Parts: sequence; C-alpha cells; structure tokens
Amino acid sequence: MTKQGPPQVGNNLDPWYDHYSERAGGLRASEVRALFAVASRPEVVSLAGGMPFVSALPQDLVINAMDRVMVEQGATALQYGSGQGVPLLREQILEVMALEGIQANADDVVVTTGSQHALELVSKLFLDPGDVVLSEGPSYVTALVIFKSYQAEVEHVPMDEHGLIPQALREHIARLKAAGKTMKFLYTIPSFHNPAGVTLSWERRLEILEIARSNNILVLEDNPYGLLYFDHPAPDAMRSVERDGVIYLGTFSKTLAPGFRVGWALAPHAIREKLVLANEAAVLSPSSFTQLVISQYLATADWKGQINTFRGVYEERKNAMLSALGEHLPGLSWTNPNGGFYVWLTLPEQLDSKAMLPRAVKELVAYTPGTAFFADGDGRQNMRLSFCYPTPENIRVGVRRLATVIRGELDLLDTFAGTGIRSTADTSRRFGAPPPDIS
Amino acid sequence: MTKQGPPQVGNNLDPWYDHYSERAGGLRASEVRALFAVASRPEVVSLAGGMPFVSALPQDLVINAMDRVMVEQGATALQYGSGQGVPLLREQILEVMALEGIQANADDVVVTTGSQHALELVSKLFLDPGDVVLSEGPSYVTALVIFKSYQAEVEHVPMDEHGLIPQALREHIARLKAAGKTMKFLYTIPSFHNPAGVTLSWERRLEILEIARSNNILVLEDNPYGLLYFDHPAPDAMRSVERDGVIYLGTFSKTLAPGFRVGWALAPHAIREKLVLANEAAVLSPSSFTQLVISQYLATADWKGQINTFRGVYEERKNAMLSALGEHLPGLSWTNPNGGFYVWLTLPEQLDSKAMLPRAVKELVAYTPGTAFFADGDGRQNMRLSFCYPTPENIRVGVRRLATVIRGELDLLDTFAGTGIRSTADTSRRFGAPPPDIS
Repeated sequence: MTKQGPPQVGNNLDPWYDHYSERAGGLRASEVRALFAVASRPEVVSLAGGMPFVSALPQDLVINAMDRVMVEQGATALQYGSGQGVPLLREQILEVMALEGIQANADDVVVTTGSQHALELVSKLFLDPGDVVLSEGPSYVTALVIFKSYQAEVEHVPMDEHGLIPQALREHIARLKAAGKTMKFLYTIPSFHNPAGVTLSWERRLEILEIARSNNILVLEDNPYGLLYFDHPAPDAMRSVERDGVIYLGTFSKTLAPGFRVGWALAPHAIREKLVLANEAAVLSPSSFTQLVISQYLATADWKGQINTFRGVYEERKNAMLSALGEHLPGLSWTNPNGGFYVWLTLPEQLDSKAMLPRAVKELVAYTPGTAFFADGDGRQNMRLSFCYPTPENIRVGVRRLATVIRGELDLLDTFAGTGIRSTADTSRRFGAPPPDIS
Repeated sequence: MTKQGPPQVGNNLDPWYDHYSERAGGLRASEVRALFAVASRPEVVSLAGGMPFVSALPQDLVINAMDRVMVEQGATALQYGSGQGVPLLREQILEVMALEGIQANADDVVVTTGSQHALELVSKLFLDPGDVVLSEGPSYVTALVIFKSYQAEVEHVPMDEHGLIPQALREHIARLKAAGKTMKFLYTIPSFHNPAGVTLSWERRLEILEIARSNNILVLEDNPYGLLYFDHPAPDAMRSVERDGVIYLGTFSKTLAPGFRVGWALAPHAIREKLVLANEAAVLSPSSFTQLVISQYLATADWKGQINTFRGVYEERKNAMLSALGEHLPGLSWTNPNGGFYVWLTLPEQLDSKAMLPRAVKELVAYTPGTAFFADGDGRQNMRLSFCYPTPENIRVGVRRLATVIRGELDLLDTFAGTGIRSTADTSRRFGAPPPDIS
C-alpha cells in the first residue's frame, strides 16, 4: 500500500505521515485552489474563479430577512435544527425546483452545507475503493477531488456541443462492464456545464436516463446554474422525468449567495434516509440561522425577479467575453453558453494551457487550465474562462491580455519551430482528446 | 462482505440497496436521534437532548453584529471564502483558546461547520477500515457514529471520577498491540465529559499525553464545554502542553449559539494542511456570513461576560438536578459535574435504561439511555441526564417523574422476583462494566 503525504509538506516534516488513511492520499490541492491566491491580487483580471457577482443582490433584501428572522424566530435560528433541514425551507425548495419541471415531496429534500456537501455525502454513501464514477470530460474540479478522496476512479465520457454523448456513454459502460468494474453513478451537470458551458439536449437527457436505468446506474444530477439561462430556459431537469434513479443537487449559492452555504439534495426516498444520517454524522444539522434567513427571503422578497437580475448581469458579461474573444482571438474556438458562468476555450494544439499560466499571470490575467477538469491529465489544450465575477470592461481587458499571451507563445514557437497559428482549431479536440477507442 | 441497508427501509423497498458503500453500513440512526422526535412534544420534560439554552443570549448582541457585518462587509459575507476560514476569526479563536492555556498560531486553526465537522474531517483523514479509535467509555454518541462510518473499531477505556484511567489505557494499548491492531488516535473529552460529567485531572492529562506520545498515538482533544465551568476552571487543555501530538477541537456552539455552525480544529501544522483540503472538498468553504457575524460579536460584545452568564444558568440547573436527585432517588449514584451539560446516573443493576425508556416517556420524561454512548452495547445500567435546556423547575418535575418510573420498575421486579432496590449502587459499574481484564 502506498501512502501519500500531505501536499507541500515533506515526509520528514510530518510526524504523522504514516497515520493518514489510504483515502487521504486523494486529497491534493487543485490547480484552481492555487489560483485563488494569485487571482486575488487586485491588478490581475481573474477569469479563473467561479464566484457569483453577489453585489447584484440588494443588501437590504438580506438585512430585512435577517432582522425578521431574529425578531420572529431568534431562539430557533440560534439553536441546533433537524439533520434534514428546516421543514418550511424544504417546501420552498420544491417551488424552486418546480421551475425546472420537478415535482417532489419535501420529505425527500435534504438541506446541506452548499450542494458541495451533498456531493460529499452521496460519495461517502456510495463509493467503495475501486468503484467507477462516470462523468463528463471535462467535469467540475471539486467533484473530481471528492471522488478521488473516496478512492473511486473517474471515467470521463466525451461531450460535444449538445452535452454528454449517449453513444460514447454506452461504449464506456460496455468496456467497464467487460473489465469487471462496478459503476455506482453517473455524475452529470446537464445545464450550462462547468466548465464546458454546454447544455444537454432534451432528447439526450431521455436517452441517457434510459441508458442509466438499463445498466442500473444511479444518476447524480448537479444543477447549480439551471435557472441562470440567457435566451431561453434549459430543458427540464432529468429528475423531472425520473424519480427513482436520480439524486438531484441544487443550491442557493448562484441564485442568492454562496456565503450562506445552503444547498440541497432531492433523493429517492430510501436514499434520503441514509443521506440524513450522513448529514447528521457530518454536521449534526445544517445552520438553522442561514436556512431561516433564506426561507424568510424566499417568503418575502421577489426572488424570481432577483434571479432575472442575475441573468441580465451574466448575459451582459458573457456577451462581453464572446465579443472580445471574437475580436482578439479570431482563430480559436470556444463554446457559446446559453447560461451559467463559463466559456471553454480551445487553444491551438501546440499550446499548453497549464504551462502558459505563469506567463498569463505575469500579463495580469488568470484562467483555469483545462487539466484541472480531468482526472487523467487531459485538457492541456483547453482553458476555462469565467465571466461571472469581473465587470464587462475587465472581461475585455482580460481577454485582450490573454490574446497577447497566446500570440506571444505562438510567436515563440514560430521562432523555434516555424509553425504558425492554425486558422481553425480541430473541433474533435474541443472537449479534450477522446480516448483512443471512442474516436 | 455484508452490506447493510438503510435503517427503517427494507431491502425490497430500496432499488439501490446493493449500491451503498461498505462504510454506509455504519450509519445507523442513534438512540438520541429517535429521542429528539419524542422529546419535542411540549408535555414531555426532556432531560435527553444537548441543546444549549440560547435564550440566555441577548438577541440584540447578535442583531447588532449581523447588521454591522452586512453594512461593513456585505459583499464578503455573501461570497465564498477561504477553505481555512476567515483570518480575523482565526486570530480571535486564539484568544478564546488562550483562556485554557493554549498558545498557537492562527495559521494552524481550521474553521469548520461546527466542531462536529472537524471530527468528521479528521476521521476521514486518518481512519482506514479496521483501525482502532481509543475513547472513553462512555463517549460522545455522534463521534462513535462517525468512527463507525469510516469502518473503524472503537475501543472503550474505562473512566472513574477523575476521568480516563491511565493504567487502563496502557493495558488496552498493550492488548491491542499484541493483537496487531493499528491505533490511529485517542478521542477524548477531558473537561466536563459528555456524557459522564467528569473531568480529567491535570496529573492524568500529563500522564495520558506521555502514554500517547510513547505509543505514537495522536490525541484528538474535544473540548466543547471547557469554558462552562462552575466552581473553578478545568485544568488547562491537553493541547497547552503538547503541540505536535494533539488535534484540538473547539466550538462556538456552547459559548455563543449552535445555529451558526461554527467550530474549529487546531492541528499540528502538517495535518492542518490536509484538513483544509478535506474541508474544501466537503464544503468549499465554511459560511462566510456566520463566521463574520461571530467575528464581529467577538470584537464588539462582552463575550467573556456572556460566557459567565451561561455558566450561571447552567450551574443553577445542575444544582436543581442534583438536589432533585438527592430528594427523589437517594439510593442511586450519579456524577457531580463541575461544568458542562450532563449528569451520568447509575441505576440499580436489575434495571435496564433502554428498556425503561418507553415507560419514562409515558410518564412524560425523557433521558438518553447509557447504551447510546457505547459502541458495544454496554451502558444499560446508566443514563445521561442533561440539565442544559430545561428550566430548574422543569428539571425538578422531570427528576420526580423519573423517580416514579424507576420506583415503578423496581416494584414490578419485586412483585415477580422478590428483589428490592439496593441502597447503594455498585460504584465499579458507574461508568459501564469494565472489560474483564481491567477489573
């Protein structure tokens, strides 16, 4: 058995080095994490993080909700609560999910410390060492960290501009089955994917649910961005057509504010029971205070109007990013998201987004290298650009700086190798290299 | 490999029954959990739960802190934060810990979603299946649930009125070593123990640290109640004399309010690094909002005076409980805590606290059976009585009802078996039966 020490600390400095669990070896600092420190310098335009633009939320809406909670329910807000979450809030969450076609019972909702914690709890409940989690390639970086931390293997399934490719999913499952692997669940972000920016079509949602059902694979549907669409809504949630085979994850982090750390899981009834126990073991109960503030906000403020405000903010920023990319990097390709926070950019194939990052930071722009979103080192030709937090003006500045960096890299390569920029990127590589047997 | 299904839901009702992880089998509803539902009926006097009496906290102190946070730091409070916690709060936590003799660096503090979550994260970091956790017998119920959920074995070491018995610890370690077991840590609640109500003496703290050091066992010092002493403070924390071998857990749940879910771990530097990664994987970051409210409260309110207020409240309640016990159950024995929330009662040996509970609830009083606090089914002759939440008057009513139940049980046994109440309990059984080799 190989043990891995803590990152950035050598074996000889840690007297407890041989005490860590096997699974602790999977907990390594992500590339995104290191970036947070860099990107926080004010002179850097960060297109790296995924912070919502919370300044678009009028603070008096929050202050009014808080004050009312303390006056009307102070003792409850300050106390321990139910491990499943505040009953009224669970009812209100049903109204939020109904906007994406979901009909459910509040008894099957489990409130968690952000939907991140739901992901952690589901992983703890289901993953044994050596199990396989199927996920889009690329996928959400901190989901990959969790799966690894429970010693699961991540199998990336390719996407195109309509999301996860059903035929590729079938082929991956068949190959894994033949290899005797146990596939516990498919982790998917069907709407406004992080980091790819694409949305799974309705037809594919049905097809993928059928594939999962017929292979006895649970679907873990992560939907933080679904309500933040631009032109038109995303297709209804996968959970809207499949009750028993889907664990659905939602959050208030993007439609309200992440500082409260309130998200939820909607689970098949039997699984919900286990989830509550796991939640209690982990935190006893989610914060009564922040749950009640959100419940009060939902009951008294125009929360749908506020989501419309966020949509407008993010759509303006996405437009700023796409027009700047068109102006400064016309030879490259990128996704055109109809919602969410992210654009997925494909570089000329001779460039390496991870190697290029320090030079970008030197030019005062930050992004997330594509490698962060693959469990297997893929993604060097890609980067994630976020338009959620910087102003449109800063987005334009950032993309201009990025173009300078990319052109500089290409010039350097030209000088040494005589190759030039390709006028169109190879679209088969837009989502990372497909594995050899799926090309 | 045996798989355990979700509690209260049969195999045939759960289509995902065979998908759960091995570790999920350890997640079972605790006896305390079932009690919460019962104890919430208003006509029941609950001596079962561990809810702090938050009404002793003036609400305007909280409202002032909240309002100031939103006015001065609103955008920060609503946003994601650092996975390690708010830097200023970590500095302030040093002041809190200094009251118990701890000198540390804020860089080694990790803020968690209640200290419960620190316990979960430490367990995830260290426990492999089959590892042994040493702990007092009895011990904190939800700690036992966590250890089991990571497939560890709990080895209970006996206590007496001065806390964990060093010689017993030595003997348990020797026996486990001889059996080839891996002991990762000793989980201990040295001050005002939950549920036993006893405090580890200073001499024993030093002796136990030395035993842990010489056996290369990490000490997990859980100290939620340390500042809530009555007559005189508890001895300084174990962490005050041992920096590299102790992970110390603290919380604001008892000195302020649990509804914020803010606790912390103070860890040796190398472990701290891993803890932050585990925290990020689990929740991205603890709630910025609740951390900043607490930080503001600590900066502007008389938090030490507030702790004194809580001390007064709980001491009055403890006195009410002990005098009621003396009046109504003079033949039994119980611990006399100098702080914290709990009294540990020993029944006549022919009684079974778990079997008696339904009859107690029928008499409108609830307690926690001693079996909840042992991993091995021990504790039937004991119960935990909490004096933290009910008023002194209700405590007296509750103890009177409890005495009625106990006398009724004994009368019943008398009728059938002719045995009578023993005038003094066997003190060797006060903390559960010692294992055969330690008697």
